[in-house]
Amino acid sequence: MSSTWNNKITFSIFGESHGQAIGVCMDNVPAGESIDLDEVYKFMARRAPKKNGLTTARNEKDMPQIMSGYYNGKTTGTPLCAIIANNDHHSQDYSNLSRLARPGHADYTGALRYRGFNDVRGGGHFSGRLTAPLCFAGAVAQQILRKRGIYIGAHVAEIHGIKDKSFDPINTSKDDIRELWDKDFPVIIDVQGNEMKKEIENAKAQGDSVGGIIEAIAINVPAGIGSPIFDGLENSIAQLIFGIPAVKGLEFGIGFESAKLTGSENNDEFYVNDRGFVVTKTNNHGGILGGISSGMPITLRVAIKPTPSISKPQETVDYSAMKNETLQIKGRHDPCIVARAVPAVEAALNIAILNHMLDYPNF
Amino acid sequence: MSSTWNNKITFSIFGESHGQAIGVCMDNVPAGESIDLDEVYKFMARRAPKKNGLTTARNEKDMPQIMSGYYNGKTTGTPLCAIIANNDHHSQDYSNLSRLARPGHADYTGALRYRGFNDVRGGGHFSGRLTAPLCFAGAVAQQILRKRGIYIGAHVAEIHGIKDKSFDPINTSKDDIRELWDKDFPVIIDVQGNEMKKEIENAKAQGDSVGGIIEAIAINVPAGIGSPIFDGLENSIAQLIFGIPAVKGLEFGIGFESAKLTGSENNDEFYVNDRGFVVTKTNNHGGILGGISSGMPITLRVAIKPTPSISKPQETVDYSAMKNETLQIKGRHDPCIVARAVPAVEAALNIAILNHMLDYPNF
Amino acid sequence: MSSTWNNKITFSIFGESHGQAIGVCMDNVPAGESIDLDEVYKFMARRAPKKNGLTTARNEKDMPQIMSGYYNGKTTGTPLCAIIANNDHHSQDYSNLSRLARPGHADYTGALRYRGFNDVRGGGHFSGRLTAPLCFAGAVAQQILRKRGIYIGAHVAEIHGIKDKSFDPINTSKDDIRELWDKDFPVIIDVQGNEMKKEIENAKAQGDSVGGIIEAIAINVPAGIGSPIFDGLENSIAQLIFGIPAVKGLEFGIGFESAKLTGSENNDEFYVNDRGFVVTKTNNHGGILGGISSGMPITLRVAIKPTPSISKPQETVDYSAMKNETLQIKGRHDPCIVARAVPAVEAALNIAILNHMLDYPNF
Amino acid sequence: MSSTWNNKITFSIFGESHGQAIGVCMDNVPAGESIDLDEVYKFMARRAPKKNGLTTARNEKDMPQIMSGYYNGKTTGTPLCAIIANNDHHSQDYSNLSRLARPGHADYTGALRYRGFNDVRGGGHFSGRLTAPLCFAGAVAQQILRKRGIYIGAHVAEIHGIKDKSFDPINTSKDDIRELWDKDFPVIIDVQGNEMKKEIENAKAQGDSVGGIIEAIAINVPAGIGSPIFDGLENSIAQLIFGIPAVKGLEFGIGFESAKLTGSENNDEFYVNDRGFVVTKTNNHGGILGGISSGMPITLRVAIKPTPSISKPQETVDYSAMKNETLQIKGRHDPCIVARAVPAVEAALNIAILNHMLDYPNF
Repeated sequence: MSSTWNNKITFSIFGESHGQAIGVCMDNVPAGESIDLDEVYKFMARRAPKKNGLTTARNEKDMPQIMSGYYNGKTTGTPLCAIIANNDHHSQDYSNLSRLARPGHADYTGALRYRGFNDVRGGGHFSGRLTAPLCFAGAVAQQILRKRGIYIGAHVAEIHGIKDKSFDPINTSKDDIRELWDKDFPVIIDVQGNEMKKEIENAKAQGDSVGGIIEAIAINVPAGIGSPIFDGLENSIAQLIFGIPAVKGLEFGIGFESAKLTGSENNDEFYVNDRGFVVTKTNNHGGILGGISSGMPITLRVAIKPTPSISKPQETVDYSAMKNETLQIKGRHDPCIVARAVPAVEAALNIAILNHMLDYPNF
Repeated sequence: MSSTWNNKITFSIFGESHGQAIGVCMDNVPAGESIDLDEVYKFMARRAPKKNGLTTARNEKDMPQIMSGYYNGKTTGTPLCAIIANNDHHSQDYSNLSRLARPGHADYTGALRYRGFNDVRGGGHFSGRLTAPLCFAGAVAQQILRKRGIYIGAHVAEIHGIKDKSFDPINTSKDDIRELWDKDFPVIIDVQGNEMKKEIENAKAQGDSVGGIIEAIAINVPAGIGSPIFDGLENSIAQLIFGIPAVKGLEFGIGFESAKLTGSENNDEFYVNDRGFVVTKTNNHGGILGGISSGMPITLRVAIKPTPSISKPQETVDYSAMKNETLQIKGRHDPCIVARAVPAVEAALNIAILNHMLDYPNF
Repeated sequence: MSSTWNNKITFSIFGESHGQAIGVCMDNVPAGESIDLDEVYKFMARRAPKKNGLTTARNEKDMPQIMSGYYNGKTTGTPLCAIIANNDHHSQDYSNLSRLARPGHADYTGALRYRGFNDVRGGGHFSGRLTAPLCFAGAVAQQILRKRGIYIGAHVAEIHGIKDKSFDPINTSKDDIRELWDKDFPVIIDVQGNEMKKEIENAKAQGDSVGGIIEAIAINVPAGIGSPIFDGLENSIAQLIFGIPAVKGLEFGIGFESAKLTGSENNDEFYVNDRGFVVTKTNNHGGILGGISSGMPITLRVAIKPTPSISKPQETVDYSAMKNETLQIKGRHDPCIVARAVPAVEAALNIAILNHMLDYPNF
Repeated sequence: MSSTWNNKITFSIFGESHGQAIGVCMDNVPAGESIDLDEVYKFMARRAPKKNGLTTARNEKDMPQIMSGYYNGKTTGTPLCAIIANNDHHSQDYSNLSRLARPGHADYTGALRYRGFNDVRGGGHFSGRLTAPLCFAGAVAQQILRKRGIYIGAHVAEIHGIKDKSFDPINTSKDDIRELWDKDFPVIIDVQGNEMKKEIENAKAQGDSVGGIIEAIAINVPAGIGSPIFDGLENSIAQLIFGIPAVKGLEFGIGFESAKLTGSENNDEFYVNDRGFVVTKTNNHGGILGGISSGMPITLRVAIKPTPSISKPQETVDYSAMKNETLQIKGRHDPCIVARAVPAVEAALNIAILNHMLDYPNF
């Protein structure tokens, strides 16, 4: 399979950037869940390109139409399919890309994999646009989880070396998360966000791009969901997060930092809190032990590489003629996709957690 | 599922640390592949505890017995099952752990997940011992890949801040990898390895432990294997790597470092090399673009947390009585499991790559 | 999962009878396969209701629109999604069905399964209309198989006791199959078909319905595809065939008849034929041994129950009020769906065989 | 996959008839279920060859050893693996079979599928002996279901034309089922069983074999389990039942008989019974509507072909030399495997129903 995730929830993402439509088909979504479509649109709008000059000028109308699985405002329990039409595409901008491998893109690898038959226009099935149906699925999962008190948020933690403050790994609240949902550029400290935006503008001015890091948190996930070895929370989350184009790294809790610590520094001691719950004093483990939730907030960080489409000239190959060429990418491209990837990371996390919640007693 | 990986290759890892046996059942291994059992034992011996004082003194005889799927020295194509008997266990050492949650362990989360019915002796199904059957499966995959010229190696890249040299991401050779396979403590620069061992001895002397980073490489993987979105090489590798206990982070190519770069710095320009192959000048992407191999070496780094079992006293809870307690872990424990996790990381990578190679034309 | 089949090919069927659209999303369809859409429409038209009085008068326009996975007349290798809009529905005809369980239908079981949240209009996701996307997927698979010489045909073998001649299980030709594809009422002996139609008309006149048997055949399937135990050809075919509403039985080769024979009567002796191929003298086994194709035609028979929607009054329950009621079904219903189920059976068989052909060397 | 079933429960059957061991690895068995091993052995003994002259004289000691997933008499929730050693095999009896295709067997198809590398001794992975681990898995599932009041029984319904009485499809009781479990030759009417045994003895005397039909029933399955289209009860049951060697047909409820009826004859009218439950007056549908249980007993019938191993001389091919040969099978073979297949059918049914019960609220 290329684009199907098969677990307790199964879903397939389909479509090519410049084809008829992109979309998603989700199976095993629980029946009877109220889904507010305005909330779904709002979630998806966070991924859509902005007109603030920091992202592509392409005017996407990424509003999904639900084909099935939704009736009288509620999920039916049978497959939920939504499509998003592709209206506004300028295929001519990409006309010479069918033979020139854009560095950092899947043009060459995709052509090999599909023996040249894949739709290359706009990146085809490899386009970042395919995160729109992922966000649809995640927005549905989010509403189902919110009703159980589970909130998932994310922010731009770093852009080209400029850092935001981190989430409090123990005391982040529902309101902290909601506040980020409402921001155009989701950072905890806006002044840091402004510095980041300057970096992005600088990169744009130079025909270049920048990467960054997204930090995400899930609060109120009950202890005891997930499984050992290959079906743990980390495994599911990782499989979905690496489905977002441009992701190059993923760490849970303090992640790579733990490699520098001793066991006594890294271990999170348990205690019974005032309300009688087992909790840990610190949360270096990021809320997951042995693949299973500990009841502490689930925290993770995702590395996003700089947008590979830059307007600076680049050396590359014409892989149909097997000769060296120089490429200058035209068209409208994001100088930084980190902010737009924030809801995609949230979406992946919502889906992974909903997936494991389906096994939770009395879900 | 807890412990089953279901892709083109399907395999289940079973067993508890102090039960009758642990093992693995693999389905869809190609038929007719010669497997040299001595080589398998050698691979597994790299994971087994050493008697050099740097790892647990427990004398494991982790040699697998093949139950099925292997006939006349070759795979039959039908399920390959191997078991490893559990002979040498001192269950009394763990007698008080059934109610005290060891910090950093899955005792508490496992008890919740399985409502107290899991076998807690020695960590049960959550024990690091379960990486032995993973190594068996990986050793089989390794031999199948080697015959196609694909070599996978790994080394201890960092222990408690002490760093080894990195793999050359472009020119690492088969011999470089073989050399590491033969080392007791797999590092590229042995003098750095000696510094690391001192850190481990220091930690041990203090009843503490240390973590580290493993770097892995796969060479000669043909361009064009893997798939977009959820079934790419990163997704499969991630799902398997996060099946190794103590893994807290994973990055491909330059990973988190890419977040600090511009697109023009990070993009790997393509060119046609002397032998007429499309290659890249640099390998920041780590050999994978859009989930699909580019033909460049696949590189990744894995963060391993410090062994959670330390002999220093720790605050924790008795989760059966829901009250606070102090725990002092006895028994024999590794002050550092990074070196022993090296073959487990290789195993995961061998399995993931073999899995996708099954779709390669004329495999 | 309710409506996803996950094997080498994965596909999900989505939609409700009176929702926005029904459709199918297929993953892992091979890249570069030419698909003639007119042929697809023709295949699907065989399933569509006819205006000959023998089937429902509902004027379905079941023509699919392809959303993705198809470019320049060929499959791209990435997910193929097609939707079929629901235009012509008379929901009011079904208005009282939301609480009265139609005998033989899934109204009551579906309401329990989805706790009352499923879309009940026109049978919702349980409607026979959902065989239209199955036929789309099957029509695509059929074209891919035909290029490899594999032809799959089916006919109405029996209606209410009236029998057609059976396929020759050894010598059925491509032309025999093509001839059936072109018939409005696919039988081998048309005079028998006319008798069957009379039975259907009689049933209709009495506000009743009739069932029947479909026989199918696949020729030129190479020997050696399929697998033992749970992933054999019978297993895959069975899982798909029982996805067609109203199917109550399935047998391969001589099926239930073999229970009456001795081994010496039932065994098919092998010989090497004139062209040097291993074949069998008889084909009681129906082309499958141990889950794997023998190279002989694959033959099977499918029992279709009488359409449960009849206009005769029936005793039933109002399951919302838990009391007994009498139901008289109005609306337009097929007095016999056997002929329309013929392409659905072919579709299932095409998909199952394509699925296993993907493992065939040099496919 | 060849021998893995992947649903809510996942399990793999491994082993070859004359290899080291056969066995099964089950994942996602619920934790904390008491399993009485004596009951498991008793279940498996029903499948084992008898010494009454009606089955093979081979003295199998098919008692399983549990490797994992079972602790203190209960399931742990992590993978349950059991192996059955192969002790008593006379490989020389099969020495000439490696090149002669036994009619009705998978020798030839298996050799093609695995390119000659499969273990052919005693049928290898295709042997009927592989139903022993299926019975282990089924015996475990049976005990879990019995505690919820669900009982599954089966009997020999027909041998070579001699028929037993059928189950009462509405009023079969737990005691009726238990009575069959205790019989050496499970029929409802013993005098009919004696007639069947005569047929078997006749076949044996002539070096021949006979086939038959098994009827099975599951009582007290709650209404509302299963799913539409591809994950319904029929689909799951079919996929497992066709995993039993020699099965050639499967029908639910009245099955093929329904093809001869009108809708008004076949439809089962609903009513509210004395205890306030929705039930049907008749049970032609066999307890499943739209893939979902109706609350009525689940009934099905399975066609078993005559044992293909007969001692009469048969024409066949030497597929290594591609020439015609005459084969006379020696060794000890069952003249009829129908009675031994009864627990295998029950096992498949127990596993399929447990699988869907895992989704049942408050299971």
